[in-house]
Amino acid sequence: MSAVENYLAEHYDEVLEDLKAFCRIPSVSTDPAFHKGIRDAAEFVANRLKKAGFASVELLDTGGHPAVYGEVISDPGLPTILVYGHYDVQPPDPLDKWMTPPFEPSIRDDRLYARGVSDDKGPLLIPILVVEAYLKNEGRLPVNLKILIEGEEESGSEHFEVTLERNRGRLGCDLVVSADGAMWRPDRPSMTVASRGMVALDVTVTGASKDLHSGRHGGSAPNPIRALTKLLASLHDAEARVAVPGFMDGAKLLDPAILTAIDAANFDAGAYYRDIGSPKPDPMENGSQLLVRQWLEPTLEFNGIFGGYQGPGTKTVIPSSASVKITCRLVAGQKPAKVIEAITRHLETNLVSGYSLQIEPHGPGSEAFSVDPNLPGLLAAEAVLAELLGSKPLRVAMGATIPIGTAFRKHLGAEAIFFSFSTSDEDYHAPNEFFRLSNFRTGLVAWARLLGRLASHPKLKRNNVT
Amino acid sequence: MSAVENYLAEHYDEVLEDLKAFCRIPSVSTDPAFHKGIRDAAEFVANRLKKAGFASVELLDTGGHPAVYGEVISDPGLPTILVYGHYDVQPPDPLDKWMTPPFEPSIRDDRLYARGVSDDKGPLLIPILVVEAYLKNEGRLPVNLKILIEGEEESGSEHFEVTLERNRGRLGCDLVVSADGAMWRPDRPSMTVASRGMVALDVTVTGASKDLHSGRHGGSAPNPIRALTKLLASLHDAEARVAVPGFMDGAKLLDPAILTAIDAANFDAGAYYRDIGSPKPDPMENGSQLLVRQWLEPTLEFNGIFGGYQGPGTKTVIPSSASVKITCRLVAGQKPAKVIEAITRHLETNLVSGYSLQIEPHGPGSEAFSVDPNLPGLLAAEAVLAELLGSKPLRVAMGATIPIGTAFRKHLGAEAIFFSFSTSDEDYHAPNEFFRLSNFRTGLVAWARLLGRLASHPKLKRNNVT
Repeated sequence: MSAVENYLAEHYDEVLEDLKAFCRIPSVSTDPAFHKGIRDAAEFVANRLKKAGFASVELLDTGGHPAVYGEVISDPGLPTILVYGHYDVQPPDPLDKWMTPPFEPSIRDDRLYARGVSDDKGPLLIPILVVEAYLKNEGRLPVNLKILIEGEEESGSEHFEVTLERNRGRLGCDLVVSADGAMWRPDRPSMTVASRGMVALDVTVTGASKDLHSGRHGGSAPNPIRALTKLLASLHDAEARVAVPGFMDGAKLLDPAILTAIDAANFDAGAYYRDIGSPKPDPMENGSQLLVRQWLEPTLEFNGIFGGYQGPGTKTVIPSSASVKITCRLVAGQKPAKVIEAITRHLETNLVSGYSLQIEPHGPGSEAFSVDPNLPGLLAAEAVLAELLGSKPLRVAMGATIPIGTAFRKHLGAEAIFFSFSTSDEDYHAPNEFFRLSNFRTGLVAWARLLGRLASHPKLKRNNVT
Repeated sequence: MSAVENYLAEHYDEVLEDLKAFCRIPSVSTDPAFHKGIRDAAEFVANRLKKAGFASVELLDTGGHPAVYGEVISDPGLPTILVYGHYDVQPPDPLDKWMTPPFEPSIRDDRLYARGVSDDKGPLLIPILVVEAYLKNEGRLPVNLKILIEGEEESGSEHFEVTLERNRGRLGCDLVVSADGAMWRPDRPSMTVASRGMVALDVTVTGASKDLHSGRHGGSAPNPIRALTKLLASLHDAEARVAVPGFMDGAKLLDPAILTAIDAANFDAGAYYRDIGSPKPDPMENGSQLLVRQWLEPTLEFNGIFGGYQGPGTKTVIPSSASVKITCRLVAGQKPAKVIEAITRHLETNLVSGYSLQIEPHGPGSEAFSVDPNLPGLLAAEAVLAELLGSKPLRVAMGATIPIGTAFRKHLGAEAIFFSFSTSDEDYHAPNEFFRLSNFRTGLVAWARLLGRLASHPKLKRNNVT
């Protein structure tokens, strides 16, 4: 065991107290009532960075909640790593479902329970503690390390891209290592190497200019709910796959290692339907087929639908309009603008006559993210996990969208890997969020070894930054 | 001109004041804030009946707002007519759209403007005034006449059937003549001889037992909006006609005179779409085809749809369930229970696997109503209108449902005709409701003549009452 790892083990009780203190700060970013918690958490991170030995520590003004920045520049010749995390947390509601209060950290069965402990306070504290251990024991780091901890991840990272853009000089790096993210399952190490992109749009079908009486006008007047449901029914085939011409244009298969992971996962389809509390479809696809759908196929999901009367009993009305909210998850190669265009064309073509159609995209959307299968940083991280945990980590994809991956690529020209020690079952958006302390300890060692391995990471040609 | 008609003409200014006084009473039945208006209006009707010479005038306890009853029994050998109307009115909102206040009657261009003046205070006052004229001038009526004026028509006539049932002995009659209803158009006399029945049901499709994240679960999890829209899309064919097997069972063509009326109506399809503010479909059906749909065909209309997120922006959720509210209008011969059964079977058969379905009918529904084309009362009323207005009235149907027709048939064994002098364009559920005073004057003469003609109406065998 190296001196650094030794130091981390010896100071474990101390750093656990640091983590608890961090978790006592109610840094809920979505709710203005927690304004003080946000400021306190940002200050906590800044102070902890200073204590660890970081230089240039400051709160960056983002236009929203501040981001915390710090750096340890050892030697301009070494590769530069930018560590990412976020100090803000999800709201703790519903409070009555918590076994112990969300901002009073409590240990049970080697798990620390608190809002935000797994997402992302525990994981982000790890690299800070590792830097401290290096500086105390070796007086320097094996790499140059910058750290950027934002305060708006749980509320949509509204000011994140502009912050990257404004600070691109200072943030320049050869690799981003995110302390946010999650292992897929508790029983097997994994690296997230892909996530789906997204586009969002609202669709409204309008018939008459006002609501009509369904007795007097029923049969002759346009019913926009009827037109909308016919339209929506045309968007998927019988296997619930998107049936919009042009939707798949450019889509390509991701890293084949993901298919290996899917096969290795033995995902249990029956258990999946039990978990979500849904009747099993008949015929039922097997677990691998379901995972392919979640990870590797694009979707078009209806998130909400509304029109007309929704109250109790009956109202004999034909509404003027009906609307649906749609989000699509995109896979590598699909262009958000082309997807919106294909859906728009399909809707316009398939709308029955006698109605008008309004389509409103929410923003430009985001492309899918995927890590180059041969990225040196990815290989280094995998080697660390294999060495520490005894088996090569699975390469997994995420159905959900990770906007930071593409943001770092766009603004800094740097690739990102996800090296988090939280696990996706740790209830991080629900009551009784917890963090496995065994993973906290493993994470400390793993980050120490990763920094060592990254010493030989190739440096980017800075003019690659676009 | 008979003495009765002469009397009515001479006392016109007086009875117009009566109508204004009636209209000053804010008898809104849906809103408890108008409780006093309801009591005052019931008292007003009772007092006006007494003044006109009715006997046995009383307020019937219905369990809700009282109904007013009175009778003039001339001779047990004469046929007995039961007159129906309602003293309650629609709410006056939105108040700022009224040119003069809704409960301050105001005459402009020979029209009386006030909430409830056309529906149904003006039309119901006519037979009362006519009875008075008969009694003052001839000392007796040509028929026995009973009158029942309810106070809950605008709020669903919740206690009407039970009131008929409780008072069936007292209400026994050979014909019901409703002073409620409306001429179809101002330029041509008409008799409403049919209206559609109704069933109402809510349908909910459920997937998972809780809302899911559409990124993580999108593609693999059931989306009940997708399943519901597929299901709803199966309910109509490409011409927007109901495509549910068994739905039409028993449906039959109504009085062919209605087809004659439809052809005579020269209904302007282009104007219809302009009026309702809807794009014209292409191809567009002609006016007669549209009227056939409104009057003679059953419908299945979606009155409301809802599920998932409805707020601004995007929420990446797959909802647990999605629902639709449906009402069907039925034509003669369709049985409400069979219709609900057919829809239920169709929905169950067409639901894709992996979802559960909940179908909740609202009440037993009501059958379509239609008048026997050879009903003596109908022929008498048509003869009066033809004589007074110079052309044979059109026989028209109503898309909306008139529950009283079937209620009188069920509880009293009596057929009903609609002999109202309001017109369907008089904004009776909207601001600036008005009543054409020319029709008020015509109505007085028409009712006087109708009572004369009904003297020879056949008497029902009372044991027909079931």
